[in-house]
Amino acid sequence: MSRKLAIALVHHPVLGRDGDILTTTITNLDLHDMSRSARTYGLEAFYVVHPFASQRLLSERIIGHWTDGAGGKRIPDRAKALKCLRVVPDLDAALSDMSSGAETSGSPELWTTAARAPGEAEVSFAAAREMLDQDGPPVLMVFGTGWGLASEVHERAALYLAPIQASKDSGFNHLSVRAACAICLDRLFG
Amino acid sequence: MSRKLAIALVHHPVLGRDGDILTTTITNLDLHDMSRSARTYGLEAFYVVHPFASQRLLSERIIGHWTDGAGGKRIPDRAKALKCLRVVPDLDAALSDMSSGAETSGSPELWTTAARAPGEAEVSFAAAREMLDQDGPPVLMVFGTGWGLASEVHERAALYLAPIQASKDSGFNHLSVRAACAICLDRLFG
Repeated sequence: MSRKLAIALVHHPVLGRDGDILTTTITNLDLHDMSRSARTYGLEAFYVVHPFASQRLLSERIIGHWTDGAGGKRIPDRAKALKCLRVVPDLDAALSDMSSGAETSGSPELWTTAARAPGEAEVSFAAAREMLDQDGPPVLMVFGTGWGLASEVHERAALYLAPIQASKDSGFNHLSVRAACAICLDRLFG
Repeated sequence: MSRKLAIALVHHPVLGRDGDILTTTITNLDLHDMSRSARTYGLEAFYVVHPFASQRLLSERIIGHWTDGAGGKRIPDRAKALKCLRVVPDLDAALSDMSSGAETSGSPELWTTAARAPGEAEVSFAAAREMLDQDGPPVLMVFGTGWGLASEVHERAALYLAPIQASKDSGFNHLSVRAACAICLDRLFG
């Protein structure tokens, strides 16, 4: 049996342009693109992580429009995608939601991703793909908004995925989180 | 020497929900995400194709803000990405712009992509990657907005890329064009 995987998009704590720790706002297209990618690659869930109740309410209203509301009636495929989306205040709430599933094998592990290696030993996508094919606890793969996850999130991780890079160095590595997430899922499940 | 590749995002002629041919509007984040992906994977250019002058003007103003304007001063990396973006009225203008480069080897070829195979022989990403490593004319890889490219665009193509799919069928295949483009580039140049 292979391991279950969910993804999380973190809005706090993340880095700003100058390395400060800050909170970013919800981007509507993150919810759409990442739930469509999660659903296409057969993931368990996509957690949107935001500490502000007002931003969580905004996300719930967007999801409602596209699942039970007018958007879902107009584009039923979008409803299927957004139904995998869950809004939580922090990563512990996401991990706890994953543990509450009927058939889990152990506490979920956090895996983090970054455009730059966080200075720890990193695991290649090929190795991570093999690990997901074997027995083990479920995995929550975490993506950061802004200029990336704060180090306190990386410090909690069981595994760092290697940064995504082109085979020939282009001197530029600034994918959107929507693009980076799609590429990660394709490398693991494509 | 390997072949040069550029991408194009087409807003007309594309399909609507019911299979009608229509024209979609510019989505701001398409310009950002696809130029960041194009720049990360070392592409020649990203063409935004729109038949309406007003929509092309809107795109030029967005590009200007992020290259010469306030956005570019605030986030210089974004300026580097958006500088590869060119706005054209149709695919012929994009092909002609590609041909005008100093060192091209023959007329550019159109390659198309689709979530569903257009009914013609399709080429795998592995085979396409090998073709791009060899000598040959430059390639313009075309993505459609809306519900995908109209058949008249596929009919002009020298090659259809196989649809992106998960290794295990999830029963859902509705990636955003931003995600599909990122995955295509990673499969060809990652």
